[in-house]
Amino acid sequence: MTAPTVGIIGGGQLARMTAQAAISLAVDTHVLALDERDPACSVATSVTLGDPNDLEVLLRFAQRCDVVTLDHERVELGALLALESAGHVVRPGAAALRYADKAHQRAALGAMGFRVPPFRVVTAAWEIDAFAADHRWPLVVKAARGGYDGRGVHVVASSEDAAIVAAALGGRHAVVEPLLEIEREIAVVVARRASGEEMVAYPVVETVQRDGICVETLAPARVDEATAVAATDVARRIAVSVDAVGILAVELFVTAEGIQVNELAPRPHNSAHWTIEGAATSQFENHLRAVLDWPLGGTRLTAAAVAMANVLGTAAGNDPTAELPRALEVPGASIHLYAKEARVGRKVGHVTALADDGEMALARARAAAGALTGAQEVATNGGAR
Amino acid sequence: MTAPTVGIIGGGQLARMTAQAAISLAVDTHVLALDERDPACSVATSVTLGDPNDLEVLLRFAQRCDVVTLDHERVELGALLALESAGHVVRPGAAALRYADKAHQRAALGAMGFRVPPFRVVTAAWEIDAFAADHRWPLVVKAARGGYDGRGVHVVASSEDAAIVAAALGGRHAVVEPLLEIEREIAVVVARRASGEEMVAYPVVETVQRDGICVETLAPARVDEATAVAATDVARRIAVSVDAVGILAVELFVTAEGIQVNELAPRPHNSAHWTIEGAATSQFENHLRAVLDWPLGGTRLTAAAVAMANVLGTAAGNDPTAELPRALEVPGASIHLYAKEARVGRKVGHVTALADDGEMALARARAAAGALTGAQEVATNGGAR
Repeated sequence: MTAPTVGIIGGGQLARMTAQAAISLAVDTHVLALDERDPACSVATSVTLGDPNDLEVLLRFAQRCDVVTLDHERVELGALLALESAGHVVRPGAAALRYADKAHQRAALGAMGFRVPPFRVVTAAWEIDAFAADHRWPLVVKAARGGYDGRGVHVVASSEDAAIVAAALGGRHAVVEPLLEIEREIAVVVARRASGEEMVAYPVVETVQRDGICVETLAPARVDEATAVAATDVARRIAVSVDAVGILAVELFVTAEGIQVNELAPRPHNSAHWTIEGAATSQFENHLRAVLDWPLGGTRLTAAAVAMANVLGTAAGNDPTAELPRALEVPGASIHLYAKEARVGRKVGHVTALADDGEMALARARAAAGALTGAQEVATNGGAR
Repeated sequence: MTAPTVGIIGGGQLARMTAQAAISLAVDTHVLALDERDPACSVATSVTLGDPNDLEVLLRFAQRCDVVTLDHERVELGALLALESAGHVVRPGAAALRYADKAHQRAALGAMGFRVPPFRVVTAAWEIDAFAADHRWPLVVKAARGGYDGRGVHVVASSEDAAIVAAALGGRHAVVEPLLEIEREIAVVVARRASGEEMVAYPVVETVQRDGICVETLAPARVDEATAVAATDVARRIAVSVDAVGILAVELFVTAEGIQVNELAPRPHNSAHWTIEGAATSQFENHLRAVLDWPLGGTRLTAAAVAMANVLGTAAGNDPTAELPRALEVPGASIHLYAKEARVGRKVGHVTALADDGEMALARARAAAGALTGAQEVATNGGAR
């Protein structure tokens, strides 16, 4: 048989769900993970253990893959460029992955004419102060690289705060922007084939963040048709502009002044986990199809409303597996656990719920996600908690 | 973490798809397979290689499992009884697995008052002849054990045929029945929890066989409401009567005289592969939930019509993976490949298609399945081939 092997740098839940999707197409997955207990290791066809920033490890890993893709952005650009120079196929390529840097993203998107929030790339406290002089406190400072799930994002209310954050950055660059009045956060997730000849967009999804972590999503987003069309158009144009390959998630703010591009993620994304049950083709299968340059699958919704709630580790440290039987009582909830230890605030799973309306879908997803973290009252009738 | 381990005897596509479903619940799967190239081996959490009828192998395998279930019925009943005697949890249990024997099935179902076709359990040619005297040729002779995908099923048109088939049986018992005038073949697939306290039934599905092999299914079946209700009622009552645990597939004939029970299969079944995309919960997840005695998931359809077409190996021996890009062009088709060599008549994958009506769903499923076996013309508009 001629099954291709897709290499995935990183062994987290995104790699885990990509490997699970690969089974249906009999595509082999080869994961480069730091630890054999990483979520993807028990699911991938094969595993290399090692540091992706160790070039020798990376080259040895890539030799066993037809295409290399990524589960996270914590790989040095230089390492990816070396991989490409050695003749390996990296999708998205190193050029597109420059957009993993939030400062590069903002600057490039602004230069391309996409509407982004006012921002400045900073490394020192005085630069934050200078930005405050134009935009007033509080501000938001985001580390340009390495931040995820709220890490590396700081609300800064004063010059004193700015000094503390700048010290923590230790000379690495960051993006500073005003604390915007946001009506809603939405995302448009697109998949684009390696050849660029085909691209599909998922319906606009609404995302709800708490402490910088995505806690739930709802598709379709509760925005007017014009906003949905504009957001989808922006996402498609960005995908072409940055030469995206595979999944590209475009996160946007809906403000009184219209939509603004917040952030890009060049990989399967939390804002599209709902697509496993809620769309004709999941983002994970479409990512594989796109990086293999195969025809893409449809993106239509499979229900009127699809909600997703993340399962986050709690201080009590409840083991979601132990709570499974209770969570499975919730009707219409599809549960995904990542086989991770439930440390505080860590994403250890998610729940998707389909329903005839958004409130019902959200209530079900929350009920099951709540049960998995040991919440004492679980609505099994799909009502509010 | 306290993830349970479900052991699966057999490493075929049913085990493969069960292991794929287990990933979502972070349930570990441990497969007992004959060959490391078996479809489930690259998907399961862990694998024991060996013969399931070697009691030492079986006991060593079971020691690593919280629950043992089966992917096929080619295990000696004695081996399963020994497993239970040694304190291992086997679900369904050895008692329910006696129903894997077609002669036992027929006799027991008849005795319980379920309507079955006229039959006789035979081992010799003269017994077939005697049955023909009452029912006239042609007859159908089915090996009581070991038959699947049309193997072990013979249409017998004369006393000479009977002698040949009896010789091939070599003293093993078989079921003989008239060649019935069948309007339609349907199946009702139910899932029942180990405790017996909960059972769910999937919508009635229509199955189309060619040369004894299931080639396609359509849900919901094109039968009147009364027939659907009666078939579902029969399947539920049989599940209780045989103390089914996990998935039980009940295959029925629709004839001018009403429905008759043809066969039972006490495991995930080809007639419910469509449930992966076409039902709220797949048969594979519900099988896991049932054998773990966890609450069961909903069975409602996710579209008006759901078709499934099997991908069967052809004489040309086309590699379905090589044909994937063309098959993926077919809109609305979800492809599942089993990573098996494409020998003639072998099930190497299946395609599911959802649509607003049955004809469209079938056309799409057939188009993609055809493409995977190298058919030259593929309708990508969902029309008829």
